[in-house]
Amino acid sequence: MRYSSQICGRYQRGAEIIGKRWTTLIIKILCPGPLRFSALAEQLEVASDRVLSERLKELETEGIVVRTVYPESPVRVEYALTDKGAALKPVIEALEGWSERWMEAPAGLENHPDH
Amino acid sequence: MRYSSQICGRYQRGAEIIGKRWTTLIIKILCPGPLRFSALAEQLEVASDRVLSERLKELETEGIVVRTVYPESPVRVEYALTDKGAALKPVIEALEGWSERWMEAPAGLENHPDH
Repeated sequence: MRYSSQICGRYQRGAEIIGKRWTTLIIKILCPGPLRFSALAEQLEVASDRVLSERLKELETEGIVVRTVYPESPVRVEYALTDKGAALKPVIEALEGWSERWMEAPAGLENHPDH
Repeated sequence: MRYSSQICGRYQRGAEIIGKRWTTLIIKILCPGPLRFSALAEQLEVASDRVLSERLKELETEGIVVRTVYPESPVRVEYALTDKGAALKPVIEALEGWSERWMEAPAGLENHPDH
């Protein structure tokens, strides 16, 4: 990744993270609370498990998502937002507000109840 | 682009636009007011002119940016945010706030004055 010397470096790093495919969807899905991988995958049905795993690992590395293993039987693995991740809620909410006001739903999703 | 039936379609479209490389930078740069292509390119120094042109055309198609040609000599061409584009300011500001609090500047940009 290359950065412009003319724009705040922190903002460019933030924009880079937010700009990665699925990131804003994963964070939105995790806002209400922790989820297992399978539940995340179910909601994000268009990303393959491999891609979702990769993106979750990247978000862990960035300290935005934390992965917790509960030693039950079978083992339960949950993903949750860290404080840093939860601090992205205002970004998600601003994007929700803008999308609701200015975006059209993609064809086929017009009547989806989750608005 | 494929969409999940489990997530608000408008949000997915909004996330798609915001998620494209350079979009959040171009919108941030245009927030203070209209700019010529050359001034945009100067601030966004890491994107090639070709890529910047393509992204601006996409943002025009989405109704986020408007391109105005002033019949002067030489012709002056300026890019500005539309109402829909200016309505993204809260997203940009939320991302700025988060980045300032949680991001490190990339190596080499630590001491850049624009913070």
